[in-house]
Amino acid sequence: MTFLNEVSHRYPKAISFAAGRPYEGFFAIEDVHRYIERYCAYLKEERGFSDAEVRRALFQYGRTKGIIHELIARNLELDEAIRVDPESVVVTVGCQEAMVTVLRALRTDERDVLMMVSPSYVGITGAARLVDMRVATVVSGDRGVDFESLDAVIRETRENGLRPRALYVVPDYSNPTGQTLSEEDRRRLLHRSRAEGFLILEDNPYGLFHGVLERQRTIKALDRDRRVVYLGSFAKTGLPGARVGYVVADQIVTGGVEGTQLLADQLAKIKSMVTVNTSPIAQAVVAGRLLENDCSLVEANRRETALYQDNMRCVQAALERHFADIPGVSWNRPDGGLFIVVDLPFAARDDELEHCAQDHDVIWTPMAHFGSDKRSQRQIRLSVSQLSNAEIDLGVERLRSFVDERSGSTE
Amino acid sequence: MTFLNEVSHRYPKAISFAAGRPYEGFFAIEDVHRYIERYCAYLKEERGFSDAEVRRALFQYGRTKGIIHELIARNLELDEAIRVDPESVVVTVGCQEAMVTVLRALRTDERDVLMMVSPSYVGITGAARLVDMRVATVVSGDRGVDFESLDAVIRETRENGLRPRALYVVPDYSNPTGQTLSEEDRRRLLHRSRAEGFLILEDNPYGLFHGVLERQRTIKALDRDRRVVYLGSFAKTGLPGARVGYVVADQIVTGGVEGTQLLADQLAKIKSMVTVNTSPIAQAVVAGRLLENDCSLVEANRRETALYQDNMRCVQAALERHFADIPGVSWNRPDGGLFIVVDLPFAARDDELEHCAQDHDVIWTPMAHFGSDKRSQRQIRLSVSQLSNAEIDLGVERLRSFVDERSGSTE
Repeated sequence: MTFLNEVSHRYPKAISFAAGRPYEGFFAIEDVHRYIERYCAYLKEERGFSDAEVRRALFQYGRTKGIIHELIARNLELDEAIRVDPESVVVTVGCQEAMVTVLRALRTDERDVLMMVSPSYVGITGAARLVDMRVATVVSGDRGVDFESLDAVIRETRENGLRPRALYVVPDYSNPTGQTLSEEDRRRLLHRSRAEGFLILEDNPYGLFHGVLERQRTIKALDRDRRVVYLGSFAKTGLPGARVGYVVADQIVTGGVEGTQLLADQLAKIKSMVTVNTSPIAQAVVAGRLLENDCSLVEANRRETALYQDNMRCVQAALERHFADIPGVSWNRPDGGLFIVVDLPFAARDDELEHCAQDHDVIWTPMAHFGSDKRSQRQIRLSVSQLSNAEIDLGVERLRSFVDERSGSTE
Repeated sequence: MTFLNEVSHRYPKAISFAAGRPYEGFFAIEDVHRYIERYCAYLKEERGFSDAEVRRALFQYGRTKGIIHELIARNLELDEAIRVDPESVVVTVGCQEAMVTVLRALRTDERDVLMMVSPSYVGITGAARLVDMRVATVVSGDRGVDFESLDAVIRETRENGLRPRALYVVPDYSNPTGQTLSEEDRRRLLHRSRAEGFLILEDNPYGLFHGVLERQRTIKALDRDRRVVYLGSFAKTGLPGARVGYVVADQIVTGGVEGTQLLADQLAKIKSMVTVNTSPIAQAVVAGRLLENDCSLVEANRRETALYQDNMRCVQAALERHFADIPGVSWNRPDGGLFIVVDLPFAARDDELEHCAQDHDVIWTPMAHFGSDKRSQRQIRLSVSQLSNAEIDLGVERLRSFVDERSGSTE
């Protein structure tokens, strides 16, 4: 991602479809103060804390698993139909630390393998590298997960004397592909997970930014056998600057030195070695946003969701206008989320991005950053979260001029 | 530490010398708001940020190495006579993440060894376990580092085909021993580091809480050859709830895929896989405290330093009063910091702590938590940070009744 930041920095006048960051027009510094005060009021009024106890909760070291687990459990029940014991929630420093702790727990030795749908979010690749865990990629295909590819990966992994421990998947409006799994495929994944004995790591940062269609139920909501470890983020639905995420790990772990325990408690032990605990001040900011909206992030994000929907429609319309007649150019049509993938008739990697930023004043993300397969080398990801309608129209027009030039030069 | 928390929880009326947390009587929620506003004002007035840029700085993802590196560099020059390029500072989620990223960078394969002075802070042991790094312990002895032991460890490590990569040390008022290295020994460590090719990981959370003696210069301030990686924490001098620490890594790394780069930049890459970046809101809280004190934490902690000095005197006086005539009981006399170590004439591990908490209403930390050597099994650590003078007097009196009972029963 460093290269992308550099390009954005070098060409400040270019229109950027690159950043996957949330829309920032609704941010206000006063919110931070109000959120913190709201959480303090909650501790006093609903939890019976004294003033000294409130100060201690915010200023001192705190519970390793976090202090806003009950609010997160309430939110999951309300927005995601996921019912979990708050004790199975571990609050983490962003979703990244959640991934790191989960993978560190699952990697018992060099034979443990993480399967991930590819192209894939770079954070999970980084977490696997950090803990020295082997990775095997499953083709996403047209449905989000290619089951033939999944079965082949499981078989080959076993044949090589390795263990398929878990499958990482973003089932809703995936980053980078924008794809969403059908309910049928979600149930099929659960079935495979039971039959083959691997866990599903469900990462859901974008689920509530749906479009006109009804939202799919999360895999965790369909899960009756604790097959799913659920990874949560407040970066897109709360605010990135709090760096608060969480993991729901209600699995029962047996046979360790600790005896029988919740996976969440095993993760807490690992987390204590990574960051000790998540800043209670940062947790208070997120908690205040939850409390102001009766713990519903759907409610809290009404404006953002409408804006992303509108931008998604706008990008689709502009692509239709500028590219309907261009051979070799196609794109997918996600119902929600922040990302669209465009197939181009030529390679579109870092070199081409640099050229496009310089000569055509528009920036995008090469899919080659997320996957090494052949198709990804000719794909680009457009993010819809940061731009106005006028910028989108102009940006897609510029993209067209870039495609015209390249198609001409390669023919 | 979980066991300690449990004991404290089960015996709430016991006087606790266990927790190494900072004094909390000066905490006020309003400070958090004022600190954040102060940092925002600094961004606008001194750095020329627009309102939108200030909001972006606090709310969005940010620079991996952090956004308050210049203030930290200013603080280090002012309080510690350490002059570093702000680019060599990486802001981390507490000092724990600093340790994790440094060890992850130093452990290139299973032959790399971390040497640590023992008894040692548990955080570094945890970080080493997390990244699967071998550990070799060096005896602390009466001076803080036993150089015969250090030389033997280096020799044996090499003989076993392993590499001594770094030595972890807390040279000022160490946790748990309360020991401080002389300037002569600091220079000797630098000499060994150069001669033997290992780095010094200097951790300094308590240095500015000195007593009547003048402060020693940090090893980093004496370092002319970038032998020292300096680990910083704001947990004791700022506030624990911000979870902000940092590492100064001005070493030049060559030969990697990235070519020649600062160790700080290699650490940033690792950090991006651990937590992406440190919450800018949490950084703003720490920055505000720095800015309110012209970047001097010595200034910011005048009240705390006086209180810890007073408590340290008070514990020493009470020990003198109650134990001067007891054979087999002795203690060290740190000039500053938060910790005193008491030698007892019998084993003092978790069982004995539980009994002491239940029957004598006083809690301490078994040194067995920090070291596995024989002497540690009969030592306890007393923390002076949290108690009033009256509580200290009563607590030491109760400790005497516990010692009387145990000494009687074992004779």
